[in-house]
Amino acid sequence: MEPFRLLGDRLLVLDQTALPREERWEEIRSARDMAEAIAELRVRGAPAIGIAAALGLWLEAKRIVGAGGGARTGARGAPSRGAALQAAGEALNAARPTAANLAWAVGRALRAAAKIDDEGGPDAWVEAVRSEALSIWEEDRAASRAMARWGAELFPTETRFLTHCHTGGLATGGGGTALGVLLGIHRSGRPIRVWATETRPLLQGARLTAWELLEEGVPVRLLADAAAAHVIARARIEAVVVGADRIARNGDVANKVGTLPLALAARNRGIPFVVVAPTSTLDLGCSSGEEIAIEERDPGEVLGYQGIPTAPPGACAENPAFDVTPARLVTAIVTDRGIHRGPAFRLGEVDTGPKSR
Amino acid sequence: MEPFRLLGDRLLVLDQTALPREERWEEIRSARDMAEAIAELRVRGAPAIGIAAALGLWLEAKRIVGAGGGARTGARGAPSRGAALQAAGEALNAARPTAANLAWAVGRALRAAAKIDDEGGPDAWVEAVRSEALSIWEEDRAASRAMARWGAELFPTETRFLTHCHTGGLATGGGGTALGVLLGIHRSGRPIRVWATETRPLLQGARLTAWELLEEGVPVRLLADAAAAHVIARARIEAVVVGADRIARNGDVANKVGTLPLALAARNRGIPFVVVAPTSTLDLGCSSGEEIAIEERDPGEVLGYQGIPTAPPGACAENPAFDVTPARLVTAIVTDRGIHRGPAFRLGEVDTGPKSR
Repeated sequence: MEPFRLLGDRLLVLDQTALPREERWEEIRSARDMAEAIAELRVRGAPAIGIAAALGLWLEAKRIVGAGGGARTGARGAPSRGAALQAAGEALNAARPTAANLAWAVGRALRAAAKIDDEGGPDAWVEAVRSEALSIWEEDRAASRAMARWGAELFPTETRFLTHCHTGGLATGGGGTALGVLLGIHRSGRPIRVWATETRPLLQGARLTAWELLEEGVPVRLLADAAAAHVIARARIEAVVVGADRIARNGDVANKVGTLPLALAARNRGIPFVVVAPTSTLDLGCSSGEEIAIEERDPGEVLGYQGIPTAPPGACAENPAFDVTPARLVTAIVTDRGIHRGPAFRLGEVDTGPKSR
Repeated sequence: MEPFRLLGDRLLVLDQTALPREERWEEIRSARDMAEAIAELRVRGAPAIGIAAALGLWLEAKRIVGAGGGARTGARGAPSRGAALQAAGEALNAARPTAANLAWAVGRALRAAAKIDDEGGPDAWVEAVRSEALSIWEEDRAASRAMARWGAELFPTETRFLTHCHTGGLATGGGGTALGVLLGIHRSGRPIRVWATETRPLLQGARLTAWELLEEGVPVRLLADAAAAHVIARARIEAVVVGADRIARNGDVANKVGTLPLALAARNRGIPFVVVAPTSTLDLGCSSGEEIAIEERDPGEVLGYQGIPTAPPGACAENPAFDVTPARLVTAIVTDRGIHRGPAFRLGEVDTGPKSR
């Protein structure tokens, strides 16, 4: 399951807000289209929005060149193609502030364009961004496969898992992070059971995780988010496994709001709390979770559901989209490069190779 | 705000499932009517369903006598009035298993009837149950007033509270438990702010707590349940204050599912986690939370909202209505008899008088 389709030079994005009710693919033609799709969660999941942003910059580069802006320096006061692409990258970065993958992928795509900027023609410039975006996508697919292998090694016998939000193929370039690990174990022939939180307010667990697990034939039980601690205490859950949106250098993890209570509940019962995320989610420039900007979304998401108000008129809500789990509560982080066992993380060293076998 | 209205000999119950959309009062005529209202959460809140059950037994006694069953022993093989009332009490007890107040109030009403059984006529028998039910109601109103006083003493300066589910006047005979304490502080003139969880699946926090606080002019922010730990960590919440459905002798607390994660989040930040409940919620026959039966409700409550499915067809859900917070996580329990400071609870002694000043 992948969130993007490339038809020649046309890019389609699967609208994840319409799932599982409807499988609706929409064409994206510019960075602005993509920034909107990201802000509105039509494409979501930290690795997926990184890829989306890079693809959006490719489409933007194509658009800039198509509109006659392919010159290295802008004519008559217009911005240069590089400056125009840079502005588009900033708009994409602003679409959602928390996921590390977004700025990381935007940075890669802009650097690829800049390398061409001084020498190449318009087509080479567009091609450089396209090629970098496709590399990011392909590397992410490979990262999912690697994380699934490391995850299977971390969980050699476990069969009862609890997960949060959605971290399957649609949240990545295909494959998945936490859910990818669980699906990998399932596909290896070991029967597993998964408890999935519904993940209010936007119900990614109910709409996407339950759907993806059902499609794959994995027995899944949905829970109200508030019920997870009880189920962890009484249902013999063996591990809580989640994704991440940004991981600080000290191992603090920002992930979908509701992750911190799961980590506390896991610690309370003495079961592992495991984070699965590609290296692109690590933010080595961020020393701890305190520095991570937490996106506050529209309170209306909490005050109703699909147009039905759930609260009285005049009620206010707060709607943080993420929370931060301190490294001391994290048993292990599975990346594409290896398994980092907590709480003494040394994520700063991850780029040098696998940390453990 | 009270959940019942007595119009002469007619009892009306406010349908809490229709709030805040609609204020709908419905007449209850029998124990079966009342058991249904309790099972369907039209009347809810541990103290309120205790009062409701006792009132239901009064209406049932009236019905038994009205149907000619007022004899002390049943004619021609029919059950005696006492046996018929006993059966109604058992049906009421079965309506919801977790709240201690239910069986406690049913027991009181049945004992009041049994005292008359050997000597009194039908009218005296009905009056005994009516009188006991009204005593239970009035004692609960007084308990709410006492808890508000003790709560104000426990929180002499705090202004930022987080609460869960609904524990206001409608959850009791009038007044409230946790919300009653907060409203008492507000009415005393100290400006407070309240963060309220929406409380999936049935949204008592969004529908009832937010509504009651708005009606009283208390600033309230609703949260997805999963966001509470983040808000506790970042919004300088000073205390988490909740009600209870059953408190074991060792101080373990069963309350609306989602309470345990709040207790863990409070402990994680070092802020007080306080339970407010009348003495009728203490179950001295229950030695620890492990013995408390946790009601499992219809999975459909989790799989949708007001008829709109939130999960794909074929999805399963688990829907525990309560969880158990271990005594070690409870800073204090405020009852009508005093403040019990944890974790060294000696609730078994509560009946002898206030534990502390």
